[in-house]
Order: sequence, then C-alpha cells, then structure tokens
Amino acid sequence: MRHLTPAEFRRLGHRAVDWIASYAERVESLPVLPQREPGELLAALPERAPEEGEGTDAWDGIFRDLDQLIVPALTHWQSPNFFAYFPCNASGPGILGELLSAGLGIQGMLWATSPAATELEFRMLSWLGRLLELPDGFLEAPGGGCIQGTASEATLVAVVAARHRVRQRTGARREQLVAYASSQAHSSVVKAAMVAGLCADASGGDALRLVAVDDEYALVPEALARAIAEDRAAGRVPFFVCATVGTTSSTAVDPLPAVGQVLRESGFAESGGWLHVDAAYAGAACICPEHRRLIDGIEHADSLCFNPHKWLLTNFDCSAFWTRDRAALVDSLSVTPEYLRNRATEEGGVIDYRDWQVPLGRRFRALKLWFVLRHYGAEGLRRHIRHHVALAALFESLVRADDRFEICAPRRLALVCFRRRGSDAENRALLERVNRSGKAYLSHTALPGPDGAERLVLRLAVGAPGTGERHVRAAWDLLRE
Amino acid sequence: MRHLTPAEFRRLGHRAVDWIASYAERVESLPVLPQREPGELLAALPERAPEEGEGTDAWDGIFRDLDQLIVPALTHWQSPNFFAYFPCNASGPGILGELLSAGLGIQGMLWATSPAATELEFRMLSWLGRLLELPDGFLEAPGGGCIQGTASEATLVAVVAARHRVRQRTGARREQLVAYASSQAHSSVVKAAMVAGLCADASGGDALRLVAVDDEYALVPEALARAIAEDRAAGRVPFFVCATVGTTSSTAVDPLPAVGQVLRESGFAESGGWLHVDAAYAGAACICPEHRRLIDGIEHADSLCFNPHKWLLTNFDCSAFWTRDRAALVDSLSVTPEYLRNRATEEGGVIDYRDWQVPLGRRFRALKLWFVLRHYGAEGLRRHIRHHVALAALFESLVRADDRFEICAPRRLALVCFRRRGSDAENRALLERVNRSGKAYLSHTALPGPDGAERLVLRLAVGAPGTGERHVRAAWDLLRE
Repeated sequence: MRHLTPAEFRRLGHRAVDWIASYAERVESLPVLPQREPGELLAALPERAPEEGEGTDAWDGIFRDLDQLIVPALTHWQSPNFFAYFPCNASGPGILGELLSAGLGIQGMLWATSPAATELEFRMLSWLGRLLELPDGFLEAPGGGCIQGTASEATLVAVVAARHRVRQRTGARREQLVAYASSQAHSSVVKAAMVAGLCADASGGDALRLVAVDDEYALVPEALARAIAEDRAAGRVPFFVCATVGTTSSTAVDPLPAVGQVLRESGFAESGGWLHVDAAYAGAACICPEHRRLIDGIEHADSLCFNPHKWLLTNFDCSAFWTRDRAALVDSLSVTPEYLRNRATEEGGVIDYRDWQVPLGRRFRALKLWFVLRHYGAEGLRRHIRHHVALAALFESLVRADDRFEICAPRRLALVCFRRRGSDAENRALLERVNRSGKAYLSHTALPGPDGAERLVLRLAVGAPGTGERHVRAAWDLLRE
Repeated sequence: MRHLTPAEFRRLGHRAVDWIASYAERVESLPVLPQREPGELLAALPERAPEEGEGTDAWDGIFRDLDQLIVPALTHWQSPNFFAYFPCNASGPGILGELLSAGLGIQGMLWATSPAATELEFRMLSWLGRLLELPDGFLEAPGGGCIQGTASEATLVAVVAARHRVRQRTGARREQLVAYASSQAHSSVVKAAMVAGLCADASGGDALRLVAVDDEYALVPEALARAIAEDRAAGRVPFFVCATVGTTSSTAVDPLPAVGQVLRESGFAESGGWLHVDAAYAGAACICPEHRRLIDGIEHADSLCFNPHKWLLTNFDCSAFWTRDRAALVDSLSVTPEYLRNRATEEGGVIDYRDWQVPLGRRFRALKLWFVLRHYGAEGLRRHIRHHVALAALFESLVRADDRFEICAPRRLALVCFRRRGSDAENRALLERVNRSGKAYLSHTALPGPDGAERLVLRLAVGAPGTGERHVRAAWDLLRE
C-alpha cells in the first residue's frame, strides 16, 4: 500500500499548511466572485480516475492544480471583500480543529464509540449556552445541546420531535398537524416541512402557515394568534412554531415574548406544541450583552439554534442546537438494532448523540469550537462581533448620506439592506456590475416596500474575518461609481 | 483581534501536523476502547468558557490537554486493532483534503457560490461511478451523483424523492404509501421513514414492511412480491424499496436482479416506484472486478449509495450517492427564495447541490476524494480492499479450524460473523473481556440461528488502514485464550 509514512505526512502536511497561510495572505487580491462559465473546470479534469496512483509524486501536480484549476474557480468566502449572504467564518483555530479532528479519525455516534467526543461536545454547548445566558433547562437534563450540521437540520429535527410529542400528548392524526412561521422565515422551514412529509410542496398547503409580518418584517403575534384559532376551530392541531431571530433577508426579529404569550394563551404550549427559535445568524451576536435582548423571551422556547460557523470563527459545519426536551428528540429519532447496543447506553447516564440528529455517524466537531473559545475567549469573540457591527453602521451612514440610495430595513447587526432609488432592473444591473468587477461581492433579496409591493434590495453583510474599514469604504466607492 | 498571523498559523499548523503523525505512530499501542466512566472528562473541563482568550499562548495548553484529557478518552477507530462496526477509514490524503477544505473555507450550496466545488464533486462522483461500472444513467443528466454526509441522509432523500414522484404520477395520498426493506436492513431505513413522517415509530406501522430474509440473511424476492401484492389489494401504494448490498449485521446481499424482476412484474416500477440500493459498506469493494457482481442488477435501481468514508480511505464524512432521476430529487427538496436566486441557476445548465440534500450549506468534500483517488489510484484502492478481504479470510480459517467456535454467516468481504459455541451470556462475557483488554475491539449483533431463534454473534470487521496479519492473529489469540 502507498500509505503516506509519518515522515511523508509531515512533509506534505507542512506544505499544505504553508499553502493555506499563503492563500490567506493573497485572498484579498483574488476576484471574490470568479467569472466562470458552467463546465469550464469539468472540461479541464480527466474523465476517469487514474488506474495507478502517483503516490507522493502526485502532490506536485495536486498543488499545481489547486493553484491553476481550483482557486480561480472558487468564490472566496474568506475574502475581506465578501459581503454576500451571511458570512461563513473560518479561522486559524477553526482550521486546526478540523485538521486534528481529521487526524484522529474517530466517529462519535455513541458515547461508547468515543467518550471524549460526546463529553467535550456537551461541555462546549454548555459554554456557548452560558455565553448566550440561556436558561439552565437548555443546558442540562432534561434538556441539553449538541452540534448539528446546519440550521436546516436543526429545524428538521425540531419538527420531528415536536410532531412526536404532540401526537403522543393529544393523539392527533398526522394530517391534522399545522406548523407556523413568518413569511420571512428561512426557506429551510418550508424544506423541513416537505422532508418531514407535512406538505407536498413549497406552498405548505394546509400544514404550514406563513404568518404576516409588520413593516419591519417581524412576525405579527396577533396574526399568529388568529391563524392558530382558525386552525383549531377547523379541527386542526397547531404543533410547531418557528420564530426567527435575525431573518436572512433583513435580520428581522420575531418578538419572542409576545409569541410566547400567544402560545400560552392559545393552549398551544399546554397541548405539547413546540416553539423553535431559528437564530442561525443573529445568535452569535447574543454573546454581547448589548445584543442579548434579541433573544429575550427564549424561556418560552423548546429549542434554539444558531450557527457558530456563520459569524463565530468556527469553520463550517457547526450549528449549535439546544432543546429543553431531549426525550422528545430521542424518542422520535432513536432506532436501536442489536449492533448499536452497548452497556453504557443501557445503564443510562450517557448521551448517544446519534439520537439527536438525522445521520448516524458524526465527526468530532467539538474540537474546533474548543480551540476557538480558548484561543479568542468570550471577549475576543465579542470584539469580533462588535467590529463588524461598527463597520456595518459605518456603511449604513454612508448610504444614508447619499440621496441616490435608501436604507430598506432597520439595521440590527452587520447586515445593511439598501437600494439605489430607481427600478429593480437598475439595482440588478448595479449588483451585477459590482460583482463582476471581482472587487466586492454582495447579494440581494426581495422585500415589500412602503406600498406593499416586493422590490429588489441589495444586501451588504459585513462578516469576513479580515474585513476592515478600508474594505467597506472601497465597496461603497465601487457602488457609488 | 487575536487572529493567528500567517506566520503563527504556519508554526501551529506544523505542530498540529506533527502531532497527528505522532498519534498515527503510537495509535497501535493505545487501548482501542478506553475504560472510562461517564462524566470523567466532563468533570475535568472548566464549567465556563474563558473570558479572555489566551491567543497563541493557548496552544501549549491545548496540545497538553489533547494528550492528557482527550486521547485517553477516545475509541481509536484508526488503530490496527479496531475490528468493531465497519471501519471509518482516515488516510494521509484524506486528512490533507479536510485540511485544505477547511483552509479555503468556501461553502458550495450553489454552483455560483463556488463553481469549482460543484464541478469537482460532479466529476469525482463520475470517477467513482465508473470504477463501480455504474450505467451511464447514474453519471450524467437526467441522473448524476453527489456527496451526502451519511448513508442515512442518502436513504432519507431517496425516500423523499420517491414519495414526490409516486404522488405526482399516481395521485396517491400520503397515508396510502408503503415502503419495503428486508428485516436485516440498516436502522437508518426505519429512521428515514420516521423522519419523513411515513410512520410514527420504529415499528413501521402500515407504512414500512420489513420483508423476510433467507438463511443467508438476504431478502426473499417472493416475500417482497407477496407483500406488494397484498398492499395493492388493500388499496395501498407501494412506492419505495430499499435493497441492501452488504447488511450491517452480516454483509448479506439482497438479490438485485430478482428484486428488479419483482418490481417490474408487480407494476411497482411502472407507477413510479423507487428502488434504492444501500451498499454503504460493500459498495467500496465493487471497484474490484471480482466483487462487482454484488451490485449486478444495479440497472434496476433509481438510486445507490456507498460510503467512501467507510472503507475507501476518504475521511468521514463522504457518502457517495447517485440517482438516475435528479429531477425527482430537486423537485422534492428545492425551495428558492429570492436571496438564493442567481443568473447561473436561472439559465439552467448548472447543478445547485443544495437541492440534492437536506442541508443548505455544504463543505468542499470533493477535495479529499480527489486527493485519495490521485494518490492511491484505482489499483491502490483495490489492493487496500483485497488486503483486508484476505485478512478476513485468514481469520475465518482460524475460526473454522477451532471446534469451540463456529462461523454464523457467509463471509463475503472483510466481516467475519462468528461465535463461541455456547450461550449468549458466554459470548457476551468473551466480548467484554476482549474489549476491556484494550488490545482489540470487536462488536456484536444478533442473527437468527439454524432453529430460527436470534442469538448473539460476534463481528470482526477487518478494515483499519494499518491492520496487518499480525493484528488479526493477535486478535484471534486473544479470543482463544
């Protein structure tokens, strides 16, 4: 076998580390969004795998191809000029966490298949949860936290656990169940409903109600109350509400205290209904006292998710998920054939995280979170958040000072929603010119304007680890030109 | 901010690489299964994240803690003495792939968010598919391949796509749908049915039939035909069959040609029914001509999954998934809000892999597969498989030569199912003694014996990258003692 010897691995590993350091040094100078035609890379790759491996000789070619074929066809999410979508933070400590996780090569599906993986993860979720000042019920039994791959998966398991709990408590038939989210909720809520079989398509049918939002794009609690009452009157069973803290389009914040009150008064909570809070982006900011109010009312929730892989320097994937009812999760996701039985599980007192998620296998993702939290500390991460929030405030002030532009939604964190006064076509053309320049990369969304009609809105999200004032000013200069 | 400078990253990265090389050198000498009490590591970890980060000073402590706290509480999946479950191969090229993927820090949800990630992945699945001699329909439109996180997720998306297609073609109501798998199918099939909302619990109810197996633990096609006919007669709509090639308990192989014939003759295929083949473990062996017959009949399937992260030296997670009907997948999983719209998607001709899976975000996992295939080549990977199969044959011969033991299922690849003649309790005690020794780690399952009653069976799966003859002989000596 041509396994790398330890000496060869050291040599090639050092080379890969150096390559990454050098990529980080030059990423700012690369076009953020590559100008590629579909199929260009495909055409440059051989049609078949090599029959004979090249062994250690392969690596000169691999590093050359990385430079010549791969990098020019990447969108550079770590570029300081990346302002599109929400960020996807990588960091030195995060990368080293991924590296060591890969090097250990363990698989943490059960406590018994690597006790350290389960226990470190549980403690890291407790560390994070305390930074968010979550109620104890989310941190310890009967609740607890785990790492999911993405917020989409967190929403899906919350839906599945909720369905199980409500049907157990009320005997509802599955076709009676109704879920709710605002019309600004993330597409993953609809997707979860489709995967879970609540609805047949993205319309949601009778199983998913998209509730009206106010003029700041936040869910209207009275509209939620009305929808629940109507569904109950029609014999349906409201079982799941997803509230969003920091929507993708505009970082709108659904009012958790008012939502909680609606759910209590409507009997939703009493009959086992489940409130999930999707704070995928904004949750990271809640480690700062000045932003913690965004999740005020979290005590009403049954589960919460936010993504350290977005804005907390922990490489993708790392989605933090907490629930106050781990039993509902485990009961709805656990299938135990003989080959997964083991003494530790049967004696109780251990967590088998496979029962908290859709997949069976699990990587050792807690390592990177541990490294990030130790390297930066809570204060370091708060500085990271505040730095970006301040830069977004700067950008907002630049937009406001120019009459040709307008701000389209309240800026709450580091996302600025704005547009050039004019048509959607003009805004689309502006966005394309900027993105095609390679000097900055922004994204867009659609939001209802003052007249209620949807219009195209540009999104500038500050969040790449290396973004500084000069990058934000340069992006603005580019837009103004 | 305390970001690592490129120089600091180089220094710490080299140290991490060296640490991994040194771990690989000593992993053989570590107890495979740690003897830990629940909570030991938890008690050794601080209760809160540090307020002030230690920055680069943190790393002496981190590496010390890795050695003193983490490694002693890990189950060493890469140890040559690991024979439990199925393997979870790491390799030098796989680790470097994970490292470079983390260093690039891109997110490939859409073609547009990193063309190279999508196109390299598509080509790698084509390389792999050709090594398996898959029909072209799996490799190119209207089919194609992608990387899923796990076989569990592959089964789930296959169920969701199948449901969508059958309901579109037949107008079936969701409560009419019935899925089928053998009673030896992996627990993830039941889990997928639960998550997808087909059934309320692991019993499967009326929505999932676990079909009888023969005395080699393979699905009985006539039993499948009978179950389908009965369900049709009762007004139900058979929509999904999961055939297993290489079951987890015993590597039993469901006969695809006969299953395909049943599905054609029963009208299942005609009404849009979907055959998924779960070859999570055994698929890797099909790159060898002498094992390819295991998936003979694959032309009857709508989708196929196998895990390069199990036995093909590509670090977890990397589950290869192909379908011949990408439209069904995309139609059932696609939700497109404005913020994900982009010109490349709308002009068609590109793949947005987010629509092939449950999560939205995606890591750049194709890199590690590329590195593995280039470094080892097809022949190198075949040698890897054959080496382990030969070692398992050796172990089987040792067991057969000892009257105190018996072989409990045909050995097809590198898993040997055996037991000490005697009671389940004796076998359980033997397994515990061996595993507690730390010198080898085996797992167990339950299989029906000649009298039809289930009995405890020991599983020895050869598959760790460094396992050689002396490790297999040592495990046997340990068992005999």
